[in-house]
Amino acid sequence: MKYFNYTDVAKLLSAADNIIGDKEKINFNKLAHFEKSDAASLIWIKNEQALKKVEAITANTVLCAPVYADALKGQGGIFVIITTENPKALFSKIAAHLFVSPVMPGIHLTAYIHPEAVIDSSSYIGPHVSVGKSKVGKGTVIHANSSIYDGVEIGDGTIIHSGVVIGSDGFGYAKNEDNSIEKFPHIGGVIIGNNVEIGANTCIDRGALGDTIIEDNVKIDNLVHIAHNVHIKHNSFIIANAMIGGSVIIGDNAWIAPSVSILQQLKIGSNATVGVAATVTKSIPDNEVWAGSPATELSEFKQRQTAIKNLLKP
Amino acid sequence: MKYFNYTDVAKLLSAADNIIGDKEKINFNKLAHFEKSDAASLIWIKNEQALKKVEAITANTVLCAPVYADALKGQGGIFVIITTENPKALFSKIAAHLFVSPVMPGIHLTAYIHPEAVIDSSSYIGPHVSVGKSKVGKGTVIHANSSIYDGVEIGDGTIIHSGVVIGSDGFGYAKNEDNSIEKFPHIGGVIIGNNVEIGANTCIDRGALGDTIIEDNVKIDNLVHIAHNVHIKHNSFIIANAMIGGSVIIGDNAWIAPSVSILQQLKIGSNATVGVAATVTKSIPDNEVWAGSPATELSEFKQRQTAIKNLLKP
Amino acid sequence: MKYFNYTDVAKLLSAADNIIGDKEKINFNKLAHFEKSDAASLIWIKNEQALKKVEAITANTVLCAPVYADALKGQGGIFVIITTENPKALFSKIAAHLFVSPVMPGIHLTAYIHPEAVIDSSSYIGPHVSVGKSKVGKGTVIHANSSIYDGVEIGDGTIIHSGVVIGSDGFGYAKNEDNSIEKFPHIGGVIIGNNVEIGANTCIDRGALGDTIIEDNVKIDNLVHIAHNVHIKHNSFIIANAMIGGSVIIGDNAWIAPSVSILQQLKIGSNATVGVAATVTKSIPDNEVWAGSPATELSEFKQRQTAIKNLLKP
Repeated sequence: MKYFNYTDVAKLLSAADNIIGDKEKINFNKLAHFEKSDAASLIWIKNEQALKKVEAITANTVLCAPVYADALKGQGGIFVIITTENPKALFSKIAAHLFVSPVMPGIHLTAYIHPEAVIDSSSYIGPHVSVGKSKVGKGTVIHANSSIYDGVEIGDGTIIHSGVVIGSDGFGYAKNEDNSIEKFPHIGGVIIGNNVEIGANTCIDRGALGDTIIEDNVKIDNLVHIAHNVHIKHNSFIIANAMIGGSVIIGDNAWIAPSVSILQQLKIGSNATVGVAATVTKSIPDNEVWAGSPATELSEFKQRQTAIKNLLKP
Repeated sequence: MKYFNYTDVAKLLSAADNIIGDKEKINFNKLAHFEKSDAASLIWIKNEQALKKVEAITANTVLCAPVYADALKGQGGIFVIITTENPKALFSKIAAHLFVSPVMPGIHLTAYIHPEAVIDSSSYIGPHVSVGKSKVGKGTVIHANSSIYDGVEIGDGTIIHSGVVIGSDGFGYAKNEDNSIEKFPHIGGVIIGNNVEIGANTCIDRGALGDTIIEDNVKIDNLVHIAHNVHIKHNSFIIANAMIGGSVIIGDNAWIAPSVSILQQLKIGSNATVGVAATVTKSIPDNEVWAGSPATELSEFKQRQTAIKNLLKP
Repeated sequence: MKYFNYTDVAKLLSAADNIIGDKEKINFNKLAHFEKSDAASLIWIKNEQALKKVEAITANTVLCAPVYADALKGQGGIFVIITTENPKALFSKIAAHLFVSPVMPGIHLTAYIHPEAVIDSSSYIGPHVSVGKSKVGKGTVIHANSSIYDGVEIGDGTIIHSGVVIGSDGFGYAKNEDNSIEKFPHIGGVIIGNNVEIGANTCIDRGALGDTIIEDNVKIDNLVHIAHNVHIKHNSFIIANAMIGGSVIIGDNAWIAPSVSILQQLKIGSNATVGVAATVTKSIPDNEVWAGSPATELSEFKQRQTAIKNLLKP
């Protein structure tokens, strides 16, 4: 693996970042966890737990918050320290720029591409992917065995992991007088923005009459269900196994924890947080934290938990 | 898109349906939501919310319940009104007959079909589908990247979305005296009826000794787990992310809401409803509504919720 | 189907197992449930429910616990009884040795294999599987449409069902000062041991800096999410739709019931049991049973349930 030095790192630093030690000694060739690093590693310090083991740390370059610098300074196994407000972000940025190979564009010969699909030539389409009459933007990556139906638009720089299904029919039916079942039409599409990431085996249904919309920078984890006509706005995170019901609107910067279920037609406000495994049966205002089943605002959730615990006191 | 007129619609109407306005003016070429329709659209009115915006509606033909006809009549943007007891069902029926193209039969050249599989020539098998030694009926559609193991029978007119797995081994093991694990045999099959729909990335395991059975007209959403030897009877709906444990029997016309978990060996009665994210640990009689974790009959569920809320009162 | 007799069975019996009746009459050619068996069937008796219908049982050979032998002896439809402490395990063992065909090794011609992948020649790789720069051990089976990314090591005798994804990036991001999102690097791998079974459409993410590890004999059901850096130790069972958060450690012989959610960074002890649909927000000690949301030790869970029920009493 290639070694990186001060020149490589310097262009990624912010003005407030500070190098402690001899910047010419920056010379790493791998990313590592602080407990498994060696003299050629770049590491980052997450919290105080690392400081308890500080004497055992060996690393070429350490990224840490300024508050931890004193504890790290002078340790024999550490060559250079870079202080920064958000070491995780800087570590991620260095990884992205120096360690992650750019996508090799191309369509794998085993992929099926509809003759009228529009695939940007800078994108990557993996083995056994199926793409219907849809669009794929610049630098977008679609991993093996994903299925994109007709009528899907995917933006630039988006990553779609294996087994993802986008554009399947939503779950909509009507019963006739004789109790027979009519399938409600699903003639809408799916619009996926730029820099979205979609985890393995996640499913995003097409809209019934309008579109299902995932805006830029939304990050969706594995095994998530996004029903028809859902609209998820910028920068929101939807974690594993979540179930987002039909026509739900999720505002910007929301955080939907793992295994959450959100009933259809509800609105989740911008900057809202929904706690793990919550069952959301009411709309949630902006900036609030909700938890529980049925979900309530966090302070009420905590009061309920306390009240139930108190029942057990003698 | 082709235009449709009175003749096209008339054969789909019931005796009780009623046309208000000049039937010769029926002339639409698209399906739309009432807020996004134009003078060439067919729309339907779901509830009173639409009536609040009635002056802004533009549509060639409007389907609505008789009770809403007066509010719609005489609106300048509406050409023809058809009143019907169930406008969603009529809208779906018109969509199915006039707007949904029939399946183009055929087996995609990238699909793998076992040499002893029996696939009706009127069915469609999509890209990268794998079909073992199994049967597929008339007019059935299997979308891209689905996997059908050996020993699966799929009826007529059934739709299987992408990424579905049917016939994988159920989860069954036995421990030997030395704590080593034996895999319990799964030599049963899977039987899927007619007009079933199975959502993306749903998994249906094969039976251990007998079969797993999904009867006619059952509709299953995305990411549902159907364990070995489950039996789901006619017209039942299983919504997204549900977990149906081994040997569970679900009666006719049941409604299993999203994210429900049903423990193994239980019976869910005909016409039963299970509420969102419920954890079902007891069998449910016919015609009852259950909710909560652990699930109880709805009135008890509500009493519990009220009792917990009351704990918070000063 | 071939018939099996005493010689075939004898080598699979333990010293404590006991044949009642004429061992020369052992002559079966199929496995069956006791309610659907015939004179050529091998069956096993699970519990007392079978004894209620004992007069209707027809079977060549019956496996049962010693305590049930008297009730079965002398029934006209039963030829031979074998008593054993764990009839399910013996039934499974006989099935595995006599009825399950060995894997036919080979790589299906539609599979994609990275040129630097190392696949043992005794393994089976099914249709439309994608294997990156990874290793697959002896006698391992990978069913249709599974996706194995780069950097995955799979041991011997492991079964991977259809639609499984192993090695997708974990869900990790950091926010820059300008609120833009950096993807945290996922350069770790995935290590899967021997005799593991992984259910359909389950997802196992790669580690961020270290590896995600699944040890020998772990059995994972369908639609399970295993996040980055999870470590699951020997003989543990993870049932359908479970969500295992990042860096969770699960000890040996644990039982994680269906639809359980375990928050990131937690430790689940050896021999621990987590009940259906529990939400685990604290680490669980060895040998304990926990249930509920949030999960608590079983006796506290039961007290809570009782206390809530008591609220409803007049």
